[in-house]
Amino acid sequence: MATLARFLHDDEIRFGLVSDGQVTPISGDYFGDREPAGDAIALDAVKLLAPIVPRQMLAVALNYKSHLGDRTPPGNPELFWKSPSSLIGPQDVIVMPKDAERVDSEGELVVVIGRRCSKVSKEDAMDHVLGYTCGNDVSARDWQRGDRQWWRAKSADTFSPMGPWIVEELEPTELTLVTRYDGEEVQRTQTNLLIYDIPTVISFASQVVTLEPGDAIYTGTPGTTRKMEDGQTVEVEISQIGALVNPVVQESE
Amino acid sequence: MATLARFLHDDEIRFGLVSDGQVTPISGDYFGDREPAGDAIALDAVKLLAPIVPRQMLAVALNYKSHLGDRTPPGNPELFWKSPSSLIGPQDVIVMPKDAERVDSEGELVVVIGRRCSKVSKEDAMDHVLGYTCGNDVSARDWQRGDRQWWRAKSADTFSPMGPWIVEELEPTELTLVTRYDGEEVQRTQTNLLIYDIPTVISFASQVVTLEPGDAIYTGTPGTTRKMEDGQTVEVEISQIGALVNPVVQESE
Repeated sequence: MATLARFLHDDEIRFGLVSDGQVTPISGDYFGDREPAGDAIALDAVKLLAPIVPRQMLAVALNYKSHLGDRTPPGNPELFWKSPSSLIGPQDVIVMPKDAERVDSEGELVVVIGRRCSKVSKEDAMDHVLGYTCGNDVSARDWQRGDRQWWRAKSADTFSPMGPWIVEELEPTELTLVTRYDGEEVQRTQTNLLIYDIPTVISFASQVVTLEPGDAIYTGTPGTTRKMEDGQTVEVEISQIGALVNPVVQESE
Repeated sequence: MATLARFLHDDEIRFGLVSDGQVTPISGDYFGDREPAGDAIALDAVKLLAPIVPRQMLAVALNYKSHLGDRTPPGNPELFWKSPSSLIGPQDVIVMPKDAERVDSEGELVVVIGRRCSKVSKEDAMDHVLGYTCGNDVSARDWQRGDRQWWRAKSADTFSPMGPWIVEELEPTELTLVTRYDGEEVQRTQTNLLIYDIPTVISFASQVVTLEPGDAIYTGTPGTTRKMEDGQTVEVEISQIGALVNPVVQESE
Protein backbone atom coordinates (compact mmCIF):
# COMPACT_ATOMS: atom_id res chain seq x y z
CA MET A 1 0.00 0.00 0.00
CA ALA A 2 1.75 3.11 -1.25
CA THR A 3 1.06 6.76 -0.50
CA LEU A 4 1.70 8.95 -3.51
CA ALA A 5 2.52 12.63 -3.32
CA ARG A 6 3.29 15.43 -5.72
CA PHE A 7 5.46 18.12 -4.26
CA LEU A 8 7.64 21.13 -4.82
CA HIS A 9 11.28 20.93 -3.69
CA ASP A 10 14.17 23.12 -4.80
CA ASP A 11 11.79 24.82 -7.29
CA GLU A 12 11.10 21.52 -8.99
CA ILE A 13 7.83 19.59 -9.12
CA ARG A 14 8.45 15.96 -8.17
CA PHE A 15 6.46 12.84 -7.46
CA GLY A 16 7.22 10.65 -4.48
CA LEU A 17 6.24 7.95 -2.00
CA VAL A 18 5.38 9.05 1.51
CA SER A 19 6.25 7.09 4.63
CA ASP A 20 7.33 7.91 8.18
CA GLY A 21 7.16 11.67 7.72
CA GLN A 22 9.37 11.58 4.66
CA VAL A 23 8.85 11.56 0.92
CA THR A 24 11.12 9.57 -1.41
CA PRO A 25 11.23 10.94 -4.96
CA ILE A 26 10.32 8.48 -7.68
CA SER A 27 10.82 8.19 -11.40
CA GLY A 28 8.88 6.07 -13.85
CA ASP A 29 5.14 5.81 -14.19
CA TYR A 30 3.11 7.41 -11.39
CA PHE A 31 0.34 4.95 -12.29
CA GLY A 32 2.49 1.86 -12.67
CA ASP A 33 6.13 0.91 -12.29
CA ARG A 34 7.88 3.39 -10.04
CA GLU A 35 11.49 3.53 -8.94
CA PRO A 36 13.13 5.46 -6.14
CA ALA A 37 15.02 8.42 -7.59
CA GLY A 38 16.83 10.17 -4.81
CA ASP A 39 17.13 10.45 -1.07
CA ALA A 40 14.12 10.72 1.22
CA ILE A 41 13.22 14.29 2.17
CA ALA A 42 11.44 15.35 5.34
CA LEU A 43 7.81 16.23 4.57
CA ASP A 44 8.17 19.53 6.34
CA ALA A 45 10.93 20.51 3.92
CA VAL A 46 8.70 20.25 0.85
CA LYS A 47 5.51 21.95 -0.30
CA LEU A 48 2.86 19.34 -1.01
CA LEU A 49 0.83 20.02 -4.17
CA ALA A 50 -2.46 18.53 -5.32
CA PRO A 51 -1.36 14.87 -5.67
CA ILE A 52 -2.41 14.73 -9.32
CA VAL A 53 -3.40 17.23 -12.00
CA PRO A 54 -6.49 15.59 -13.48
CA ARG A 55 -7.34 16.06 -17.12
CA GLN A 56 -10.93 16.13 -15.92
CA MET A 57 -12.81 15.98 -12.65
CA LEU A 58 -16.34 14.77 -12.04
CA ALA A 59 -18.33 15.10 -8.84
CA VAL A 60 -21.48 13.42 -7.54
CA ALA A 61 -24.37 15.51 -6.24
CA LEU A 62 -26.88 14.27 -3.66
CA ASN A 63 -24.96 11.11 -2.76
CA TYR A 64 -25.56 10.89 1.01
CA LYS A 65 -29.03 10.62 2.55
CA SER A 66 -27.85 12.94 5.31
CA HIS A 67 -27.27 15.63 2.64
CA LEU A 68 -30.45 14.91 0.67
CA GLY A 69 -32.78 15.74 3.52
CA ASP A 70 -36.35 15.59 2.24
CA ARG A 71 -35.35 15.39 -1.43
CA THR A 72 -35.99 12.21 -3.39
CA PRO A 73 -32.83 10.20 -4.04
CA PRO A 74 -31.86 10.46 -7.71
CA GLY A 75 -32.50 7.48 -9.99
CA ASN A 76 -28.90 7.62 -11.26
CA PRO A 77 -25.70 9.11 -9.92
CA GLU A 78 -26.11 12.86 -10.54
CA LEU A 79 -22.75 13.95 -11.88
CA PHE A 80 -21.27 17.32 -12.77
CA TRP A 81 -17.93 18.65 -13.95
CA LYS A 82 -15.37 20.47 -11.84
CA SER A 83 -12.82 22.14 -14.07
CA PRO A 84 -9.12 21.39 -13.47
CA SER A 85 -8.54 25.16 -13.46
CA SER A 86 -10.15 25.20 -10.01
CA LEU A 87 -7.65 22.71 -8.53
CA ILE A 88 -5.50 23.72 -5.55
CA GLY A 89 -3.36 21.71 -3.14
CA PRO A 90 -2.88 21.46 0.61
CA GLN A 91 -2.43 24.80 2.40
CA ASP A 92 -3.35 26.75 -0.74
CA VAL A 93 -5.84 29.54 -0.14
CA ILE A 94 -9.54 29.12 -0.96
CA VAL A 95 -10.67 32.52 -2.27
CA MET A 96 -14.33 33.39 -1.79
CA PRO A 97 -15.21 35.54 -4.83
CA LYS A 98 -16.47 39.03 -4.04
CA ASP A 99 -19.68 38.51 -6.01
CA ALA A 100 -20.66 35.28 -4.24
CA GLU A 101 -22.90 35.74 -1.20
CA ARG A 102 -22.39 32.38 0.41
CA VAL A 103 -19.53 29.94 -0.12
CA ASP A 104 -19.56 26.56 1.66
CA SER A 105 -17.01 23.77 1.95
CA GLU A 106 -18.07 20.23 1.07
CA GLY A 107 -15.74 17.59 2.45
CA GLU A 108 -15.56 14.56 0.13
CA LEU A 109 -13.72 11.33 -0.52
CA VAL A 110 -12.05 11.58 -3.95
CA VAL A 111 -11.27 8.54 -6.07
CA VAL A 112 -8.44 8.80 -8.61
CA ILE A 113 -8.45 6.71 -11.77
CA GLY A 114 -5.30 4.67 -12.44
CA ARG A 115 -6.16 2.86 -15.68
CA ARG A 116 -8.17 4.04 -18.66
CA CYS A 117 -11.74 2.84 -18.54
CA SER A 118 -14.64 2.99 -20.93
CA LYS A 119 -17.92 1.14 -20.42
CA VAL A 120 -16.56 -0.76 -17.45
CA SER A 121 -18.89 -2.94 -15.37
CA LYS A 122 -19.42 -2.38 -11.64
CA GLU A 123 -17.61 -5.65 -11.07
CA ASP A 124 -14.49 -4.53 -12.92
CA ALA A 125 -14.56 -0.84 -11.99
CA MET A 126 -12.22 -1.10 -9.02
CA ASP A 127 -9.46 -2.52 -11.25
CA HIS A 128 -9.24 0.99 -12.73
CA VAL A 129 -8.69 2.84 -9.46
CA LEU A 130 -5.30 4.25 -8.46
CA GLY A 131 -6.31 5.31 -4.97
CA TYR A 132 -8.06 7.83 -2.75
CA THR A 133 -7.53 11.32 -1.42
CA CYS A 134 -9.42 14.07 0.38
CA GLY A 135 -11.31 16.72 -1.55
CA ASN A 136 -13.26 19.86 -0.87
CA ASP A 137 -16.02 20.60 -3.37
CA VAL A 138 -16.20 24.33 -2.60
CA SER A 139 -19.64 25.61 -3.58
CA ALA A 140 -21.05 29.11 -4.07
CA ARG A 141 -24.68 28.56 -3.09
CA ASP A 142 -26.22 31.64 -4.71
CA TRP A 143 -24.59 30.84 -8.05
CA GLN A 144 -25.62 27.22 -7.64
CA ARG A 145 -29.24 28.31 -7.28
CA GLY A 146 -29.28 31.17 -9.77
CA ASP A 147 -27.33 29.81 -12.74
CA ARG A 148 -28.69 27.18 -15.09
CA GLN A 149 -25.46 25.20 -14.77
CA TRP A 150 -22.93 24.99 -11.95
CA TRP A 151 -19.94 26.14 -13.99
CA ARG A 152 -18.84 28.84 -11.52
CA ALA A 153 -20.71 27.60 -8.43
CA LYS A 154 -18.38 24.57 -8.34
CA SER A 155 -15.39 25.60 -10.48
CA ALA A 156 -14.42 29.17 -9.69
CA ASP A 157 -10.66 29.48 -9.21
CA THR A 158 -9.51 27.68 -6.00
CA PHE A 159 -12.82 25.78 -5.62
CA SER A 160 -11.30 22.29 -5.87
CA PRO A 161 -8.81 21.65 -3.06
CA MET A 162 -7.38 18.12 -3.21
CA GLY A 163 -4.79 16.22 -1.17
CA PRO A 164 -2.64 15.81 0.79
CA TRP A 165 -1.73 12.60 -1.07
CA ILE A 166 -3.21 9.52 -2.73
CA VAL A 167 -3.42 6.32 -0.70
CA GLU A 168 -3.60 3.10 -2.71
CA GLU A 169 -5.52 -0.04 -1.84
CA LEU A 170 -7.79 1.32 0.82
CA GLU A 171 -11.20 -0.19 1.45
CA PRO A 172 -13.15 2.98 0.53
CA THR A 173 -16.32 1.92 2.36
CA GLU A 174 -14.63 1.79 5.76
CA LEU A 175 -13.52 5.37 6.18
CA THR A 176 -14.62 8.21 8.43
CA LEU A 177 -14.83 11.68 6.89
CA VAL A 178 -14.86 14.80 9.03
CA THR A 179 -14.89 18.47 7.97
CA ARG A 180 -13.82 21.13 10.46
CA TYR A 181 -13.85 24.93 10.39
CA ASP A 182 -11.16 26.27 12.74
CA GLY A 183 -11.21 22.92 14.51
CA GLU A 184 -15.00 22.84 14.95
CA GLU A 185 -16.67 19.81 13.40
CA VAL A 186 -19.26 20.70 10.75
CA GLN A 187 -19.61 17.42 8.81
CA ARG A 188 -19.07 13.76 9.72
CA THR A 189 -19.92 10.55 7.92
CA GLN A 190 -18.91 6.99 7.34
CA THR A 191 -18.16 6.46 3.66
CA ASN A 192 -20.27 3.30 3.51
CA LEU A 193 -23.30 5.61 3.53
CA LEU A 194 -22.78 6.74 -0.07
CA ILE A 195 -26.03 6.21 -1.98
CA TYR A 196 -24.13 5.30 -5.15
CA ASP A 197 -20.92 3.54 -4.21
CA ILE A 198 -17.64 4.04 -6.04
CA PRO A 199 -17.90 1.06 -8.44
CA THR A 200 -21.39 2.20 -9.43
CA VAL A 201 -20.30 5.78 -10.04
CA ILE A 202 -17.25 4.78 -12.09
CA SER A 203 -19.24 2.27 -14.12
CA PHE A 204 -22.06 4.75 -14.76
CA ALA A 205 -19.74 7.61 -15.79
CA SER A 206 -17.63 5.35 -18.00
CA GLN A 207 -20.63 4.31 -20.09
CA VAL A 208 -20.39 7.65 -21.91
CA VAL A 209 -17.18 9.35 -20.78
CA THR A 210 -13.82 7.62 -21.14
CA LEU A 211 -11.87 8.03 -17.91
CA GLU A 212 -8.09 8.37 -18.12
CA PRO A 213 -5.37 7.83 -15.52
CA GLY A 214 -5.38 10.81 -13.18
CA ASP A 215 -9.02 11.71 -13.72
CA ALA A 216 -10.67 12.29 -10.36
CA ILE A 217 -14.19 11.87 -9.02
CA TYR A 218 -15.45 13.73 -5.95
CA THR A 219 -17.89 11.21 -4.51
CA GLY A 220 -20.36 13.46 -2.67
CA THR A 221 -20.73 15.36 0.58
CA PRO A 222 -22.66 14.38 3.74
CA GLY A 223 -25.01 16.25 6.04
CA THR A 224 -25.50 19.98 5.99
CA THR A 225 -22.79 22.41 5.01
CA ARG A 226 -21.89 25.76 6.46
CA LYS A 227 -20.94 29.17 5.10
CA MET A 228 -17.22 29.88 5.38
CA GLU A 229 -15.90 33.09 6.89
CA ASP A 230 -12.87 35.16 5.94
CA GLY A 231 -9.80 33.98 7.83
CA GLN A 232 -11.07 30.52 8.73
CA THR A 233 -9.11 27.34 8.17
CA VAL A 234 -10.97 24.38 6.67
CA GLU A 235 -9.88 20.81 7.23
CA VAL A 236 -11.22 17.71 5.47
CA GLU A 237 -9.90 14.67 7.30
CA ILE A 238 -10.45 11.08 6.19
CA SER A 239 -9.27 8.14 8.29
CA GLN A 240 -6.42 6.13 6.75
CA ILE A 241 -5.69 9.03 4.38
CA GLY A 242 -4.99 12.21 6.31
CA ALA A 243 -6.11 15.82 6.42
CA LEU A 244 -6.50 18.40 3.66
CA VAL A 245 -6.13 21.85 5.21
CA ASN A 246 -6.82 25.15 3.44
CA PRO A 247 -7.10 28.72 4.71
CA VAL A 248 -10.05 30.78 3.47
CA VAL A 249 -9.84 34.37 2.31
CA GLN A 250 -12.60 36.74 1.21
CA GLU A 251 -11.75 38.47 -2.05
CA SER A 252 -11.80 42.23 -1.55
CA GLU A 253 -14.21 44.45 -3.43
CA MET B 1 -3.64 36.64 -40.54
CA ALA B 2 -2.49 33.08 -39.97
CA THR B 3 -4.45 29.84 -40.12
CA LEU B 4 -3.26 27.37 -37.51
CA ALA B 5 -3.69 23.62 -37.80
CA ARG B 6 -2.80 20.57 -35.77
CA PHE B 7 -2.34 17.46 -37.84
CA LEU B 8 -1.09 13.92 -38.06
CA HIS B 9 1.59 13.15 -40.63
CA ASP B 10 3.93 10.16 -40.70
CA ASP B 11 2.46 9.05 -37.36
CA GLU B 12 3.52 12.29 -35.73
CA ILE B 13 1.33 15.07 -34.36
CA ARG B 14 2.52 18.42 -35.70
CA PHE B 15 1.41 22.03 -35.72
CA GLY B 16 1.42 24.09 -38.87
CA LEU B 17 0.31 27.11 -40.87
CA VAL B 18 -2.25 26.54 -43.60
CA SER B 19 -2.28 28.37 -46.93
CA ASP B 20 -3.10 27.50 -50.54
CA GLY B 21 -4.12 23.94 -49.80
CA GLN B 22 -0.90 23.19 -47.97
CA VAL B 23 0.26 23.11 -44.37
CA THR B 24 3.76 24.21 -43.36
CA PRO B 25 4.97 22.62 -40.11
CA ILE B 26 6.05 25.07 -37.42
CA SER B 27 8.15 24.93 -34.29
CA GLY B 28 8.15 27.36 -31.41
CA ASP B 29 5.15 28.67 -29.54
CA TYR B 30 1.76 27.93 -31.10
CA PHE B 31 0.46 31.01 -29.27
CA GLY B 32 3.36 33.31 -30.05
CA ASP B 33 6.60 33.20 -32.00
CA ARG B 34 6.43 30.47 -34.61
CA GLU B 35 9.03 29.37 -37.11
CA PRO B 36 8.68 27.23 -40.21
CA ALA B 37 10.06 23.77 -39.50
CA GLY B 38 9.92 21.74 -42.67
CA ASP B 39 8.53 21.65 -46.16
CA ALA B 40 4.90 22.42 -46.94
CA ILE B 41 2.69 19.33 -47.17
CA ALA B 42 -0.50 19.04 -49.22
CA LEU B 43 -3.53 19.19 -46.91
CA ASP B 44 -4.93 16.04 -48.46
CA ALA B 45 -1.80 14.15 -47.38
CA VAL B 46 -2.35 14.84 -43.68
CA LYS B 47 -5.08 14.06 -41.18
CA LEU B 48 -6.31 17.28 -39.59
CA LEU B 49 -6.90 16.99 -35.85
CA ALA B 50 -8.79 19.30 -33.50
CA PRO B 51 -6.66 22.45 -33.87
CA ILE B 52 -5.96 22.64 -30.15
CA VAL B 53 -6.40 20.36 -27.14
CA PRO B 54 -7.94 22.73 -24.62
CA ARG B 55 -7.25 22.28 -20.95
CA GLN B 56 -10.85 23.33 -20.49
CA MET B 57 -13.84 24.23 -22.65
CA LEU B 58 -16.76 26.44 -21.78
CA ALA B 59 -19.94 26.91 -23.80
CA VAL B 60 -22.72 29.49 -23.74
CA ALA B 61 -26.36 28.40 -23.54
CA LEU B 62 -29.25 30.49 -24.89
CA ASN B 63 -27.09 33.01 -26.71
CA TYR B 64 -29.13 33.65 -29.89
CA LYS B 65 -32.69 35.02 -29.82
CA SER B 66 -33.51 32.63 -32.66
CA HIS B 67 -32.65 29.72 -30.33
CA LEU B 68 -34.36 31.19 -27.25
CA GLY B 69 -37.80 31.25 -28.79
CA ASP B 70 -40.28 32.35 -26.12
CA ARG B 71 -37.81 32.00 -23.27
CA THR B 72 -36.62 35.10 -21.40
CA PRO B 73 -33.06 36.07 -22.29
CA PRO B 74 -30.73 35.28 -19.38
CA GLY B 75 -29.45 38.16 -17.24
CA ASN B 76 -25.86 36.93 -17.61
CA PRO B 77 -24.09 34.67 -20.08
CA GLU B 78 -25.26 31.16 -19.10
CA LEU B 79 -22.10 29.06 -19.25
CA PHE B 80 -21.43 25.35 -18.86
CA TRP B 81 -18.44 23.05 -19.12
CA LYS B 82 -17.67 20.72 -22.00
CA SER B 83 -15.00 18.23 -20.97
CA PRO B 84 -11.85 17.94 -23.12
CA SER B 85 -12.46 14.18 -23.13
CA SER B 86 -15.31 14.81 -25.57
CA LEU B 87 -13.08 16.57 -28.12
CA ILE B 88 -12.79 15.19 -31.66
CA GLY B 89 -11.41 16.64 -34.88
CA PRO B 90 -12.52 16.99 -38.49
CA GLN B 91 -13.85 13.79 -40.07
CA ASP B 92 -13.87 11.99 -36.72
CA VAL B 93 -17.05 10.07 -36.02
CA ILE B 94 -19.76 11.48 -33.73
CA VAL B 95 -21.14 8.48 -31.84
CA MET B 96 -24.75 8.72 -30.68
CA PRO B 97 -24.84 6.73 -27.41
CA LYS B 98 -27.24 3.81 -27.38
CA ASP B 99 -29.01 5.08 -24.26
CA ALA B 100 -29.68 8.56 -25.65
CA GLU B 101 -33.02 8.97 -27.40
CA ARG B 102 -32.31 12.14 -29.30
CA VAL B 103 -28.93 13.62 -30.18
CA ASP B 104 -28.74 16.98 -32.00
CA SER B 105 -25.89 18.94 -33.53
CA GLU B 106 -25.41 22.56 -32.52
CA GLY B 107 -23.22 24.52 -34.93
CA GLU B 108 -21.23 27.20 -33.12
CA LEU B 109 -18.44 29.72 -33.52
CA VAL B 110 -15.63 28.77 -31.12
CA VAL B 111 -13.17 31.32 -29.74
CA VAL B 112 -9.75 30.08 -28.62
CA ILE B 113 -7.81 31.90 -25.90
CA GLY B 114 -4.25 32.91 -26.76
CA ARG B 115 -3.10 34.66 -23.61
CA ARG B 116 -3.88 33.90 -19.99
CA CYS B 117 -6.66 36.07 -18.65
CA SER B 118 -8.16 36.62 -15.26
CA LYS B 119 -10.67 39.37 -14.43
CA VAL B 120 -10.22 40.99 -17.82
CA SER B 121 -12.47 43.87 -18.86
CA LYS B 122 -14.67 43.73 -21.96
CA GLU B 123 -12.44 46.39 -23.48
CA ASP B 124 -9.29 44.28 -23.04
CA ALA B 125 -10.80 40.83 -23.62
CA MET B 126 -9.97 40.61 -27.31
CA ASP B 127 -6.26 41.03 -26.56
CA HIS B 128 -6.44 37.53 -25.09
CA VAL B 129 -7.90 35.81 -28.15
CA LEU B 130 -5.81 33.56 -30.39
CA GLY B 131 -8.46 33.05 -33.06
CA TYR B 132 -11.63 31.30 -34.16
CA THR B 133 -12.73 27.89 -35.33
CA CYS B 134 -15.92 25.92 -35.98
CA GLY B 135 -17.48 23.81 -33.25
CA ASN B 136 -20.34 21.41 -32.84
CA ASP B 137 -21.85 21.32 -29.36
CA VAL B 138 -23.41 17.87 -29.73
CA SER B 139 -26.32 17.57 -27.31
CA ALA B 140 -28.32 14.59 -26.03
CA ARG B 141 -31.69 16.22 -25.41
CA ASP B 142 -33.22 13.61 -23.10
CA TRP B 143 -30.17 13.70 -20.82
CA GLN B 144 -30.18 17.49 -20.99
CA ARG B 145 -33.77 17.51 -19.71
CA GLY B 146 -33.54 14.61 -17.26
CA ASP B 147 -30.22 15.15 -15.50
CA ARG B 148 -29.63 17.91 -12.96
CA GLN B 149 -26.41 18.89 -14.75
CA TRP B 150 -25.38 18.55 -18.40
CA TRP B 151 -22.27 16.45 -17.74
CA ARG B 152 -23.18 13.74 -20.27
CA ALA B 153 -25.73 15.66 -22.35
CA LYS B 154 -22.91 17.89 -23.60
CA SER B 155 -19.72 15.90 -22.88
CA ALA B 156 -20.26 12.27 -23.78
CA ASP B 157 -17.31 10.92 -25.79
CA THR B 158 -17.19 12.52 -29.29
CA PHE B 159 -19.65 15.31 -28.34
CA SER B 160 -17.22 18.20 -29.00
CA PRO B 161 -16.10 18.29 -32.64
CA MET B 162 -13.80 21.24 -33.34
CA GLY B 163 -11.92 22.44 -36.42
CA PRO B 164 -10.77 22.35 -39.11
CA TRP B 165 -8.27 25.04 -38.04
CA ILE B 166 -7.96 28.27 -36.10
CA VAL B 167 -8.09 31.52 -38.05
CA GLU B 168 -6.47 34.53 -36.39
CA GLU B 169 -7.56 38.14 -36.56
CA LEU B 170 -11.07 37.67 -37.91
CA GLU B 171 -13.82 40.12 -37.10
CA PRO B 172 -16.02 37.61 -35.25
CA THR B 173 -19.20 39.65 -35.64
CA GLU B 174 -19.16 39.51 -39.43
CA LEU B 175 -19.41 35.78 -40.04
CA THR B 176 -22.13 33.56 -41.42
CA LEU B 177 -22.64 30.20 -39.71
CA VAL B 178 -24.49 27.36 -41.44
CA THR B 179 -25.10 23.80 -40.21
CA ARG B 180 -26.02 21.11 -42.74
CA TYR B 181 -27.09 17.48 -42.42
CA ASP B 182 -26.17 15.57 -45.60
CA GLY B 183 -26.02 18.90 -47.39
CA GLU B 184 -29.41 20.10 -46.18
CA GLU B 185 -29.31 23.37 -44.28
CA VAL B 186 -30.67 23.09 -40.73
CA GLN B 187 -29.22 26.20 -39.04
CA ARG B 188 -28.10 29.60 -40.32
CA THR B 189 -27.13 32.80 -38.55
CA GLN B 190 -24.99 35.89 -38.69
CA THR B 191 -22.65 35.93 -35.72
CA ASN B 192 -23.48 39.55 -34.90
CA LEU B 193 -26.76 38.21 -33.48
CA LEU B 194 -25.10 36.74 -30.38
CA ILE B 195 -26.94 38.06 -27.30
CA TYR B 196 -23.68 38.19 -25.31
CA ASP B 197 -20.82 38.99 -27.63
CA ILE B 198 -17.37 37.46 -27.34
CA PRO B 199 -15.72 40.23 -25.27
CA THR B 200 -18.63 40.08 -22.80
CA VAL B 201 -18.45 36.30 -22.48
CA ILE B 202 -14.67 36.25 -22.00
CA SER B 203 -14.79 39.08 -19.49
CA PHE B 204 -17.66 37.47 -17.55
CA ALA B 205 -16.05 34.02 -17.42
CA SER B 206 -12.66 35.41 -16.47
CA GLN B 207 -14.03 37.13 -13.36
CA VAL B 208 -14.02 33.75 -11.60
CA VAL B 209 -12.22 31.27 -13.88
CA THR B 210 -8.69 31.95 -15.11
CA LEU B 211 -8.51 31.21 -18.82
CA GLU B 212 -5.28 29.78 -20.21
CA PRO B 213 -3.89 29.69 -23.75
CA GLY B 214 -5.74 27.00 -25.67
CA ASP B 215 -8.90 27.14 -23.58
CA ALA B 216 -11.91 27.29 -25.88
CA ILE B 217 -15.39 28.79 -25.61
CA TYR B 218 -18.31 27.57 -27.72
CA THR B 219 -20.30 30.77 -28.14
CA GLY B 220 -23.84 29.45 -28.62
CA THR B 221 -26.09 27.97 -31.27
CA PRO B 222 -28.80 29.65 -33.36
CA GLY B 223 -32.33 28.69 -34.33
CA THR B 224 -33.79 25.26 -33.82
CA THR B 225 -31.75 22.10 -33.93
CA ARG B 226 -32.56 18.73 -35.40
CA LYS B 227 -32.14 15.10 -34.35
CA MET B 228 -29.27 13.38 -36.13
CA GLU B 229 -29.70 10.04 -37.85
CA ASP B 230 -27.29 7.13 -38.16
CA GLY B 231 -25.12 7.50 -41.24
CA GLN B 232 -25.60 11.23 -41.74
CA THR B 233 -22.77 13.67 -42.27
CA VAL B 234 -22.88 16.93 -40.32
CA GLU B 235 -21.17 20.07 -41.52
CA VAL B 236 -20.67 23.30 -39.58
CA GLU B 237 -19.46 25.95 -41.98
CA ILE B 238 -18.41 29.46 -40.98
CA SER B 239 -17.45 32.07 -43.56
CA GLN B 240 -13.76 33.08 -43.53
CA ILE B 241 -12.97 29.94 -41.50
CA GLY B 242 -14.11 26.82 -43.34
CA ALA B 243 -16.15 23.70 -42.73
CA LEU B 244 -16.04 21.18 -39.91
CA VAL B 245 -17.37 17.86 -41.23
CA ASN B 246 -18.16 14.79 -39.14
CA PRO B 247 -19.97 11.55 -39.93
CA VAL B 248 -22.55 10.34 -37.42
CA VAL B 249 -22.90 6.76 -36.23
CA GLN B 250 -25.48 5.24 -33.91
CA GLU B 251 -23.88 3.10 -31.21
CA SER B 252 -25.22 -0.42 -31.41
CA GLU B 253 -27.13 -1.99 -28.54
